[in-house]
Amino acid sequence: MKNNIAVIGLGSMGYGIATSCLRSGHLVWGVDTNIDQVKAFCSQGGQATTLNSVIDKIDVVVVVVLNSVQTEEVLFGQEGLVENLKPGTVVISCATVAPTFAIDMERRCKEFEIFYLDAPISGGALKAKNGQLSIMASGVKEAFQHARPTLDSISETVFELGDEAGTGSAMKSVNQLLAGVHIAVMAEALTFGISQGISPDKFVEVISKCAGTSWMLENRAPHIVNGDYKPHSSINIWPKDLGIVLDVALESKFNAPIATAALEQFRTAVDMGLGFEDDAAVAKVYAKSANLSLPKKNDV
Amino acid sequence: MKNNIAVIGLGSMGYGIATSCLRSGHLVWGVDTNIDQVKAFCSQGGQATTLNSVIDKIDVVVVVVLNSVQTEEVLFGQEGLVENLKPGTVVISCATVAPTFAIDMERRCKEFEIFYLDAPISGGALKAKNGQLSIMASGVKEAFQHARPTLDSISETVFELGDEAGTGSAMKSVNQLLAGVHIAVMAEALTFGISQGISPDKFVEVISKCAGTSWMLENRAPHIVNGDYKPHSSINIWPKDLGIVLDVALESKFNAPIATAALEQFRTAVDMGLGFEDDAAVAKVYAKSANLSLPKKNDV
Repeated sequence: MKNNIAVIGLGSMGYGIATSCLRSGHLVWGVDTNIDQVKAFCSQGGQATTLNSVIDKIDVVVVVVLNSVQTEEVLFGQEGLVENLKPGTVVISCATVAPTFAIDMERRCKEFEIFYLDAPISGGALKAKNGQLSIMASGVKEAFQHARPTLDSISETVFELGDEAGTGSAMKSVNQLLAGVHIAVMAEALTFGISQGISPDKFVEVISKCAGTSWMLENRAPHIVNGDYKPHSSINIWPKDLGIVLDVALESKFNAPIATAALEQFRTAVDMGLGFEDDAAVAKVYAKSANLSLPKKNDV
Repeated sequence: MKNNIAVIGLGSMGYGIATSCLRSGHLVWGVDTNIDQVKAFCSQGGQATTLNSVIDKIDVVVVVVLNSVQTEEVLFGQEGLVENLKPGTVVISCATVAPTFAIDMERRCKEFEIFYLDAPISGGALKAKNGQLSIMASGVKEAFQHARPTLDSISETVFELGDEAGTGSAMKSVNQLLAGVHIAVMAEALTFGISQGISPDKFVEVISKCAGTSWMLENRAPHIVNGDYKPHSSINIWPKDLGIVLDVALESKFNAPIATAALEQFRTAVDMGLGFEDDAAVAKVYAKSANLSLPKKNDV
């Protein structure tokens, strides 16, 4: 089944989602404040007219923005979409947000007879581009039904986590707690290894085959070996996402000391001016503190 | 080539190593203060006479004890082996110890013309039993040569990390830093998930397929799901191993805040009387702190 889909936010994730929808034969509008991204998307077959002029044709809205503030602005702000969408449209909300925020958005969408799918994504820009994301989704049965053709176009795996918003975002928070800590502790262990005479490339060769490995270690440690901090996913993501995790934890009186320690390392990285570098650059916090040298680009 | 091998320490790792050596056709003596373990090993084909009576026949000594104190006692204590071994024998030392300790042992063995292989092991009891350990080894060329038939019998992978003792132990410290943190943060994330309405089995199902996964998560989280804390590897390992990591780090003026936070959780677990439970029981520290229920045995 082909849908008319609006993708709001054409960053690296949103752009991949939008083009994956195009490949499946849907009619897709791309919306972004960055005009160059919109033009690029149109050159790939995306629709060029403004969303307002076609609002009553839209079946599915995929919101792929940075955070809860932007999500709320898109849905209910000055140029708020939800009040203008035709009843029965589904909003697929992909940003990492607190579960309570997702629950609130679902409630407010329902007032306009709009279905809301709490649908945080995992997998990174390459998987977004290839339509192979993992999606941690929760929402009413109709939200899943209406979203299905779009989900099929953009994902490899959809975890169906229940019939109300919030659970998807809770699972994403759990995943981000682990992912953020695993990146920071990879940097901690790799630089500790340097201090003991173990080179970063030997670290990757050995540890990736031992019990100390993680998905993030295998994905990010090579960036340090190659001295390449071009951002696949930036340092700036982590004060935000671990901040959400710890806000949610605090509300539940849940003590998360390891996530807290990792957050501190990412905040220090931001303070060092590394916010827009790849998140593997958190290794520079450790290297600076212990006066160690990391590989330069093309050292290897 | 068949060797005459003495395995000192028949705990879960040493017993697996000793029986793997037997399977390869070596003549193997097993030594342990626990007589039942020695009897069991003899019933599998292990040698029954005392080590002293055959000391001049031994080609290889594998030391699989708990820590550096026990390793030193075995090699140089009251009934010290090294002075009685025939020159050219190799000692394969498997305990997790500080790199400086390994360097010291190598030096002292050399005084008796005994080769020393700094050879910490990774992989757990099952891989020990199956002769599929990973070994992080360093030492002189002759130490590797003399140890080779034994290494081939007990390991799937031998990482050759250099020609002097210390580097093997350094790599093991790096691995243990990661492994310990990954167990503790798995427990942190799993219990955080419970606080947000995510069941432990759903946690394992989803996260093991997402970017938040780790080797330890996939290995240990099922113990929590099953409420089964029979020790595969006990809580008590971690104050010891993370303690070594942090001692080494301190000597190198290396700051490891995430390992420090994880160590604190394991120490709290010991204080709660959980030292001899499986290390996944660190989840009980979080559950108690946040007043959450973990699955009971046979709940699932």
